[in-house]
Amino acid sequence: MTKMKRIALAARPEGEPTDENFRLEEVDMPEPGPGEILVEVAYMSLDPYMRGRMDDVKSYAKPVQIGETMEAGGIGKVIKSNHDGFKEGDYAVGRFGWADHAVQPGDQCMKWDPDMAPLSTSQGVLGMPGFTAWAGMTAYSDLKAGETLVVAAATGPVGSMVGQLAKRAGARVIGVAGGDEKCKMAVEKFGFDACIDHKGKDANAMREALAAECPDGIDVYFENVGGPVLGGVLPLMNLYGRIIVCGMIAWYNNQQDETAAFPMGKLWRMILVKRLTIQGLLQTDHAARFGDFLRETAPLVKSGEIEHVEDIVDGLENAPAAFRSLLKGGNKGKLVVRLAGG
Amino acid sequence: MTKMKRIALAARPEGEPTDENFRLEEVDMPEPGPGEILVEVAYMSLDPYMRGRMDDVKSYAKPVQIGETMEAGGIGKVIKSNHDGFKEGDYAVGRFGWADHAVQPGDQCMKWDPDMAPLSTSQGVLGMPGFTAWAGMTAYSDLKAGETLVVAAATGPVGSMVGQLAKRAGARVIGVAGGDEKCKMAVEKFGFDACIDHKGKDANAMREALAAECPDGIDVYFENVGGPVLGGVLPLMNLYGRIIVCGMIAWYNNQQDETAAFPMGKLWRMILVKRLTIQGLLQTDHAARFGDFLRETAPLVKSGEIEHVEDIVDGLENAPAAFRSLLKGGNKGKLVVRLAGG
Repeated sequence: MTKMKRIALAARPEGEPTDENFRLEEVDMPEPGPGEILVEVAYMSLDPYMRGRMDDVKSYAKPVQIGETMEAGGIGKVIKSNHDGFKEGDYAVGRFGWADHAVQPGDQCMKWDPDMAPLSTSQGVLGMPGFTAWAGMTAYSDLKAGETLVVAAATGPVGSMVGQLAKRAGARVIGVAGGDEKCKMAVEKFGFDACIDHKGKDANAMREALAAECPDGIDVYFENVGGPVLGGVLPLMNLYGRIIVCGMIAWYNNQQDETAAFPMGKLWRMILVKRLTIQGLLQTDHAARFGDFLRETAPLVKSGEIEHVEDIVDGLENAPAAFRSLLKGGNKGKLVVRLAGG
Repeated sequence: MTKMKRIALAARPEGEPTDENFRLEEVDMPEPGPGEILVEVAYMSLDPYMRGRMDDVKSYAKPVQIGETMEAGGIGKVIKSNHDGFKEGDYAVGRFGWADHAVQPGDQCMKWDPDMAPLSTSQGVLGMPGFTAWAGMTAYSDLKAGETLVVAAATGPVGSMVGQLAKRAGARVIGVAGGDEKCKMAVEKFGFDACIDHKGKDANAMREALAAECPDGIDVYFENVGGPVLGGVLPLMNLYGRIIVCGMIAWYNNQQDETAAFPMGKLWRMILVKRLTIQGLLQTDHAARFGDFLRETAPLVKSGEIEHVEDIVDGLENAPAAFRSLLKGGNKGKLVVRLAGG
């Protein structure tokens, strides 16, 4: 076996990505250099932030260049190791990209204990999305029992963790999701107090639906979608409300304005009048606390006290279509691609 | 003397206030009831926030009703006292309104030591505006030596205090003000590193001018104007930048959108990408620290280490015109109206 497969960025998308933006390639299997490991990938993660990396704009990470392997986190079995921290057969979590094999510096990978929780959870509830939720809630929410929290993409890997952590803190938790099935899942599986279907609702309709479920207003909004959901939430924010901004999926494909629903001047007046705190969140800023996160949440995931849902797609070649569906809200839980090592 | 003068809200303004919105009246001098004091006003303050109180909208304070005395802070000499904390001849700071005399509960007034600093400073550099600046800087700016701070209305009572506190903290301080004279004052009197004239500049021109003076970007923006200045600042904010929102004078008269300069989606993407912190500030939330503020800053004001500028207008009847001019940026320093007691 001297060949491996990868998916490269073939062209930058205009708006929604299409098949033409991706290229499946067979390339030579790389050899690990000093301090590096070669892994056979078991699961790779697909996440909305990857859309941002496809654009040639300054962001919190540099864009993927044309012809480069699309970026992704993953987990895989170490098949060759030149790093003291890993031996063959160990499992490593790292930035392996859209690929069935990868070489990475061992120092940039994390060893995963398969007895702690299933391999795939390293990409979701116990990986970057779960940690994003936990880091934002612990660092910025200041959530108190009896307060009301709203989170969109409620059944997604960030939203479902946010909601469950908020319920454990004694808050009223209202989700927003697309479609009856997801809304039902938010309430029945994840224990949300209610979940609102955003489909077909503009900002005004969102506001009305949220107002009905948030009789005491909204204290914390965990923002991961933008667009009309944000427009509906803003007028309901309470004095001293906190908005944690961890994603803007509604705006990833479209830089158009959404201000018909909420003008800029009104937003800033509201920040002032209600003394809101708005805080951008990126989990990498909190990386030093990842161990705390695993110690606190892994046992709860294993025991089922914290629930999670995964959408598993088989085969690297199916990643582009799965990713496009993700951007349109077509997934129910954390989306992962299972490869030969999984 | 059994009559007093006051200015009542005659009608709610549409956009910019006009003479028709105010009515100068002679009314009976009130008698202080139990626990109350009667003061002869020496100085009354005029501030942009008063424009907001003229609208019938929910805000952090209830609106002035038609026929009621316009609200204002002031300082005056106690001429009758039914409160143990005040005797005749004391000076009291309180909410005396647009009026030459007022009755207020003694519990809602603060005694002022005229030896600490001149009476009029109680309305500006050592009053609500100075405290707003100090409270925002100490509670939310997290300003470090070597960072860059931008503040608009740089020669105003909030902006000039913000800039001077930031300089004392070792920051690079760039002001924004309207016109050459104010810009010169910001640099020469208040010690700003530079000051940009916003007149005739749209958001793009503001951004270019700010970029030239902020080679390392902007770490803290003390927001008190909104509009194109904000549009120019936002693209220059650094990673982990802080925006403290304490006023929106550009939007007080006009709830129109300003998004041609900066679309809503772009703002929220930027909050995320740069992990900005945006914090609404109202000084009343910090009232418990007012004593700390006076202890720290009054000696510096008296010694001249903290500079201040006052625009003094004589006579209650001239208050409406002075207020209208204030909203258009016609003042250079803290605007106060001197009455018979001053």
